[in-house]
Amino acid sequence: MFITFEGIDGSGKSTQARRLAAALEAQGQPCVLTREPGGSVGAEEIRALVLQGDPDRWSPETELLLFTAARRDHLEQTIRPALARGDIVICDRFADSTRVYQGVSRGDLRAKVDALHGLMIGVEPDLTVLIDMDPAQGLARAKGRGGDEERFEDMGVDLQEKMRAAFLDLAKANARFVVIDGARDIACVARDVLAAVTMRLSQKPEQPA
Amino acid sequence: MFITFEGIDGSGKSTQARRLAAALEAQGQPCVLTREPGGSVGAEEIRALVLQGDPDRWSPETELLLFTAARRDHLEQTIRPALARGDIVICDRFADSTRVYQGVSRGDLRAKVDALHGLMIGVEPDLTVLIDMDPAQGLARAKGRGGDEERFEDMGVDLQEKMRAAFLDLAKANARFVVIDGARDIACVARDVLAAVTMRLSQKPEQPA
Repeated sequence: MFITFEGIDGSGKSTQARRLAAALEAQGQPCVLTREPGGSVGAEEIRALVLQGDPDRWSPETELLLFTAARRDHLEQTIRPALARGDIVICDRFADSTRVYQGVSRGDLRAKVDALHGLMIGVEPDLTVLIDMDPAQGLARAKGRGGDEERFEDMGVDLQEKMRAAFLDLAKANARFVVIDGARDIACVARDVLAAVTMRLSQKPEQPA
Repeated sequence: MFITFEGIDGSGKSTQARRLAAALEAQGQPCVLTREPGGSVGAEEIRALVLQGDPDRWSPETELLLFTAARRDHLEQTIRPALARGDIVICDRFADSTRVYQGVSRGDLRAKVDALHGLMIGVEPDLTVLIDMDPAQGLARAKGRGGDEERFEDMGVDLQEKMRAAFLDLAKANARFVVIDGARDIACVARDVLAAVTMRLSQKPEQPA
């Protein structure tokens, strides 16, 4: 089973991805916890290339190609081998983040994003957990965290509002989504996430190896 | 005018690209001499990422995405601004090299190569000079040159034969090509290249800026 976490910056999705992996491992289910952009040796190198330096040094189209290259490497080197072993893969951000960030926030590239995904990736998660959060609250959390990869987090509340709406639109349009209110105690959110995953796991038919 | 040079390794295309730029500059025509993969700051960084390390560390699909990202950056940062100034752009390798190397030599990716080019690049040269060369002769030249970026040059004569045939097929199918016999004295080849370019320049209608 391939599970992704999505949401605006500061929504708590990374924390929740970690907690879900720990909870499933505690039940004896092997998990691979990974993230995008990155998640494999090559993809991490591409991530560094994209995120370091002047935020405007890559055009939206070039950035989209680099993220897609990183995703392809991540899929081949990390995700597919883990799924083939029978592990659950839990990924912090995947293609939906690209749809929202590149498609909505940086020019109207949405048609190109979808075409490129269909051409070079072609995989969707079995379950996508959207941790929904009011942007003002999310941004305060993200800023408080610090770090040197804040390009996406410097976009401000207005843009995060648009992204939140775009994530919710994706969730409405795709049955693989479950939307969870992230504006609550971390343990509460984690309990809802685990319940949603457990229900989806029980529904998923056994697949031949 | 956007001119590209194509051909197998050791065909002498880089030498001929340089000589053409010098000849046109001597006539008072400003030229930008560039190359792929690379040709802009960002694209050179992507080139380094692709060509360094284990030749098998990227799958053909990931490599194709990285080369396309580099091409997009090169087009935006170097080629389009030079053409907008009225310069002649002379480029050592462009999309035809991708069609031949990734499409023919590394899996049957040709349909993906064309789809990706149409989606994210969409530009063809006004003139493509194919320096045609017997692979045994070209490979001897390439090996003699040394250097640490020999991944493509280590492919052997059989593969270079296939690539030569693929370049010639592209030339037959596309009127923008001129094929020049590279197995001759460098000055002879250069004279034929300049004659072909001069003829094409005289045919090209003036375009609005």
